[in-house]
Amino acid sequence: MQSTKNLSVVLHGIDDLRLEERLIPEPKDNEVLLKMGVVGICKSDIHFCVHGRIGPFILDAPMVTGHEGSGTVVKVGKGVKHLKEGDRVAIEPGVACFRCDYCREGRLNLCKNIAFCSTPPVDGNLARYHAHAADFCFKLPDNISLEEGALLEPLSVGIHTCTRGNVGVGDHVLILGAGPIGLVTLLTAKAFGASKVIVLDLIQSRLDKAKELGADYVVLVDQKAHEEDIIKKVIDTLGCEPTKSIDCVGFELTTRVAVQATKTGGMVILVGLAQLDVNFPISDLLLREVDVRGVFRCVNNYPTALELVSSGKVDVSSLVTHNYKMEDALVAFRTFKTEPENAIKVLIHVDSEWSRS
Amino acid sequence: MQSTKNLSVVLHGIDDLRLEERLIPEPKDNEVLLKMGVVGICKSDIHFCVHGRIGPFILDAPMVTGHEGSGTVVKVGKGVKHLKEGDRVAIEPGVACFRCDYCREGRLNLCKNIAFCSTPPVDGNLARYHAHAADFCFKLPDNISLEEGALLEPLSVGIHTCTRGNVGVGDHVLILGAGPIGLVTLLTAKAFGASKVIVLDLIQSRLDKAKELGADYVVLVDQKAHEEDIIKKVIDTLGCEPTKSIDCVGFELTTRVAVQATKTGGMVILVGLAQLDVNFPISDLLLREVDVRGVFRCVNNYPTALELVSSGKVDVSSLVTHNYKMEDALVAFRTFKTEPENAIKVLIHVDSEWSRS
Amino acid sequence: MQSTKNLSVVLHGIDDLRLEERLIPEPKDNEVLLKMGVVGICKSDIHFCVHGRIGPFILDAPMVTGHEGSGTVVKVGKGVKHLKEGDRVAIEPGVACFRCDYCREGRLNLCKNIAFCSTPPVDGNLARYHAHAADFCFKLPDNISLEEGALLEPLSVGIHTCTRGNVGVGDHVLILGAGPIGLVTLLTAKAFGASKVIVLDLIQSRLDKAKELGADYVVLVDQKAHEEDIIKKVIDTLGCEPTKSIDCVGFELTTRVAVQATKTGGMVILVGLAQLDVNFPISDLLLREVDVRGVFRCVNNYPTALELVSSGKVDVSSLVTHNYKMEDALVAFRTFKTEPENAIKVLIHVDSEWSRS
Amino acid sequence: MQSTKNLSVVLHGIDDLRLEERLIPEPKDNEVLLKMGVVGICKSDIHFCVHGRIGPFILDAPMVTGHEGSGTVVKVGKGVKHLKEGDRVAIEPGVACFRCDYCREGRLNLCKNIAFCSTPPVDGNLARYHAHAADFCFKLPDNISLEEGALLEPLSVGIHTCTRGNVGVGDHVLILGAGPIGLVTLLTAKAFGASKVIVLDLIQSRLDKAKELGADYVVLVDQKAHEEDIIKKVIDTLGCEPTKSIDCVGFELTTRVAVQATKTGGMVILVGLAQLDVNFPISDLLLREVDVRGVFRCVNNYPTALELVSSGKVDVSSLVTHNYKMEDALVAFRTFKTEPENAIKVLIHVDSEWSRS
Repeated sequence: MQSTKNLSVVLHGIDDLRLEERLIPEPKDNEVLLKMGVVGICKSDIHFCVHGRIGPFILDAPMVTGHEGSGTVVKVGKGVKHLKEGDRVAIEPGVACFRCDYCREGRLNLCKNIAFCSTPPVDGNLARYHAHAADFCFKLPDNISLEEGALLEPLSVGIHTCTRGNVGVGDHVLILGAGPIGLVTLLTAKAFGASKVIVLDLIQSRLDKAKELGADYVVLVDQKAHEEDIIKKVIDTLGCEPTKSIDCVGFELTTRVAVQATKTGGMVILVGLAQLDVNFPISDLLLREVDVRGVFRCVNNYPTALELVSSGKVDVSSLVTHNYKMEDALVAFRTFKTEPENAIKVLIHVDSEWSRS
Repeated sequence: MQSTKNLSVVLHGIDDLRLEERLIPEPKDNEVLLKMGVVGICKSDIHFCVHGRIGPFILDAPMVTGHEGSGTVVKVGKGVKHLKEGDRVAIEPGVACFRCDYCREGRLNLCKNIAFCSTPPVDGNLARYHAHAADFCFKLPDNISLEEGALLEPLSVGIHTCTRGNVGVGDHVLILGAGPIGLVTLLTAKAFGASKVIVLDLIQSRLDKAKELGADYVVLVDQKAHEEDIIKKVIDTLGCEPTKSIDCVGFELTTRVAVQATKTGGMVILVGLAQLDVNFPISDLLLREVDVRGVFRCVNNYPTALELVSSGKVDVSSLVTHNYKMEDALVAFRTFKTEPENAIKVLIHVDSEWSRS
Repeated sequence: MQSTKNLSVVLHGIDDLRLEERLIPEPKDNEVLLKMGVVGICKSDIHFCVHGRIGPFILDAPMVTGHEGSGTVVKVGKGVKHLKEGDRVAIEPGVACFRCDYCREGRLNLCKNIAFCSTPPVDGNLARYHAHAADFCFKLPDNISLEEGALLEPLSVGIHTCTRGNVGVGDHVLILGAGPIGLVTLLTAKAFGASKVIVLDLIQSRLDKAKELGADYVVLVDQKAHEEDIIKKVIDTLGCEPTKSIDCVGFELTTRVAVQATKTGGMVILVGLAQLDVNFPISDLLLREVDVRGVFRCVNNYPTALELVSSGKVDVSSLVTHNYKMEDALVAFRTFKTEPENAIKVLIHVDSEWSRS
Repeated sequence: MQSTKNLSVVLHGIDDLRLEERLIPEPKDNEVLLKMGVVGICKSDIHFCVHGRIGPFILDAPMVTGHEGSGTVVKVGKGVKHLKEGDRVAIEPGVACFRCDYCREGRLNLCKNIAFCSTPPVDGNLARYHAHAADFCFKLPDNISLEEGALLEPLSVGIHTCTRGNVGVGDHVLILGAGPIGLVTLLTAKAFGASKVIVLDLIQSRLDKAKELGADYVVLVDQKAHEEDIIKKVIDTLGCEPTKSIDCVGFELTTRVAVQATKTGGMVILVGLAQLDVNFPISDLLLREVDVRGVFRCVNNYPTALELVSSGKVDVSSLVTHNYKMEDALVAFRTFKTEPENAIKVLIHVDSEWSRS
């Protein structure tokens, strides 16, 4: 008989997040059963709580939340070769089909049949036990903790972002937003050799964190500031127009600043999404050949993420501001949602043994 | 004493286009003096007549109009090696400085110091005589006429567009707008090997021309149609989502259709500009990684344009719907402006000897 | 009880090719059982007959030969969705694992675990019945015959070659060798928009075929010619240095001609392999930045191949010089091996019903 | 009357290097006259002394040597805008024409009409005074010394090399040769984010320097070692096959090791040239799609070089092992030529005031 001792955080509907026991799943072929270690909370998890949807993805049945997770293999499904019981792994939440045209072209994040943790209707991994495709579990070396393992997911988004943006030596990068994605993008841009990085935000405490993580310049913006003034401030502070601008927020104001501030012939990368449509200055694209690329999740970035953390080039743990036990998961969500000035990355320690040291 | 017998079409202000005699210029070092043969009228010439500006480019002094020209070398400036008296040439209207960072990187169209014919304050070449930088005059082989020579400029824009869009075999291309730029883009896309091309327009006669030039499908759109319906019609007609969509119009509706109709992971190229800002569906860029690139003029495309026309792969002369003598230039402008359903490419035969055969 | 009526062409060792009955395989999960229609003979098949190996791939057990095949689905394995009994398909011979790093990056041809028909120890498909991974069977539209279906494999190599070489409008392409690969590369280069293509070979009849297939120029080379003379002849005939040179032969002489004839800043693509090591002019790579890329098989090219043939842009059937019944397979191999001047593409009609019309 | 007080190092023929007084040149239009500060000796300078040629470049008249230089503007030619008397500059030795097809495409290093210091018949800049195209003189910020300014030339080659090789995060780079070019490539690869760099050389002292400059691993190679053993040692030490291998030597052995050691699907970059032709393993290019690119000098890399040095990301001065006064220039050349184990970068302080501190 299957055990039901699998404490999980389940989203039942808008503003209806519950802690409840679920069945412990059996690993299917090519899956592993994981005793979860750490799961981070992501803005998109909150978005589903508040709106019940993100663009085309709509919640219409109870769903386990969470997709930034790490854990330990406790059972190995048929056909799994590269993992064994006891292995500590980071979980790539998107399980691609490998077969569709996008997968064959190496664009797994665009897979037509992808199953992505905590994107309806697929359950997430904020639970004591989670079964996941072994092909998307990456073994952690001894010098990477389960906390860091959980943070590889946002870091991978930063890596995909800087890869799409071809960020490197010679680039002067503007990052809009100093939230978790803005900060992993900052860490990645520096690791990629970006010459200078300037970070913009509305909250001073987040900019302080950006400074601490290596931002060359930070700019505090007032909610009511005019875009011309923000653009001027960015260029004056940076000493030149940014060659690449990365919008990790996704409001009309940030996208407009990103496009208009960017150097002629440069690139804008959109990774944060807050409005589906915005009043957009396309004339900058036409008259100045500023290219625009969007970023959707990540693709094949875990090996690089592992290497950046394992080599010490990127200190991803410095993003963590809060730690909670599984039993306090709902508090954790409330904190992340209500204290943007304090809470950057909130981790939930799912392992029942964990206790605040 | 310098001759003043240089009949020119001069824009003095909004709706104030005049035929007047000007001085025949002396070719400077590295310039050639050209006896102009044929000059085509471009939508941007009209735009300056109507609005007195295009984005940041403002007319504040009388300016000779015209930038799609060909002519014959009648005098060679000091230092010119590759041209001699009697050579027939196509004129690339943008004279780059060669020295700035953009020029050194091969992006001459973004040159900080470019002098572009009939973009204020630089005089255009719709005159009996015009002096131009020899580096931007391309000798015509015997099998290319002066009419075709004048048409190399719009064709080069089509080539730059398909090059920026990396159009080729396997692409299903949506072209929005069957005006001159839409049609040269169609011709180029086919020459680049595009698998299928579908063209959209409001005017049936233009779509008929597109069909004649090789469009696989055409779609007539009603001014009042909803974008969802247009997108559905495009996809149903093409049999799939376009991998690349090229907006040669630049209104909010066309840009929105281009972005939303494009296949996930595909590309939108913006080459037509009608509105500086539009309500833009950025969520398609983020959730579907549809890239967006703008096209500004052309860059290093004349050699390819020459080859496509000379080899017969592209019949650019089929774009021509009207021919006028220099003395009738103002009529030519009026026709182009007032008869969009008939007038696609209007040529002015500047050479005094020319007479309608 | 399993039927043994599966006439197959089996290579037992050097110069030991046999026609023998084998078991009809059962399609495994995600496989389809095919009643084979047509299989083409490839130079590599002959190479295994003559040498028992190609580079690291060594024959050490009897192996069914053949990898350029098409057939009809007669049985569908568990999990197969996109194919059903009666579907006519082209077979992509390389079955990638989808899971390794190369597959995830979209480079399936470099898959660490690939199973490639008739590359030891994997059986080929020159048999009455063959079971193949459904993911690598491409349904043929009604306007593509089984003969053409079998020819999609070499065509795909031509497509991969021109894709790796980024061949397109403006390219002047030198193709060394007018054998099957040289000719499919010619067909593809033209479909990709190459401006001019010049083909080199030792055999006039092959050059005649190249001309018939659209080569702009051909050059007959004498076995004893000096490389300088060949290079001079190529450049004089083409009227310029080739921007891209594609060596479909792979002897020292052809690779040296390819590299030295290519325009400074151009590219050499190596697709034919005859010698593992050659005396190579690396100074052209260093002093003239001529890039060199090798081509291994094909990758994700079947959809494009299908489209080129289905649209009529490429007439691949014109490569066929000989047709044989299955019972005459050994004669077919002998012909292909001994009559290079006549035999370009030799097809074996595996279907027992086929008879020379 | 023109002063003849311009002490210069002139190569008259094989092994015939002389110190002699020459005329002080007048700066032409767009040129500046420089009072030279520091000039480094490059292997190619020695090569001309020893062989009187490099590939197609043949010395057939006395020529001032030296091309790695920095100096101070003492006179400004007509038309020069961005420089004034007293400016300290680094000299890019290759003066491109800006007009040819290569220049227009941004490949200035392939310019058909380039004038490159100390490449016959163009005089170099190892002289008290040198006139140079202002467009190829880069103003030094206050925090960059003239010594460092002279070292920007080799550093730029390293930057061009890593740019051509697309070196970055995730790359495991093998560098063959720990001479000046090998070491600047090492410095650049690290600045570009390369994950691990392993350096190979015959001389321990050079490997010690590589270690000091940040090499993750070094491998001492015996002149008589077999390539298989070297390859095995590289892979065992690095823990994997290099994704990119950069040959800064250019002997048959190093090119063969580079190609065969490189990971399937990886890239080999050739920057050192010692033999015009080598026995080359092309089968690795074909069967494993290892791409090969050569590097010729540098192109548009000075701005990046300036930034890397100015920001402190690259300490190029650590390459310097020897300093000489202009009067001892011939000794400097002898040292560089005869003491490879000690002499890595040898600088000549051309300024008469300089004295060994």
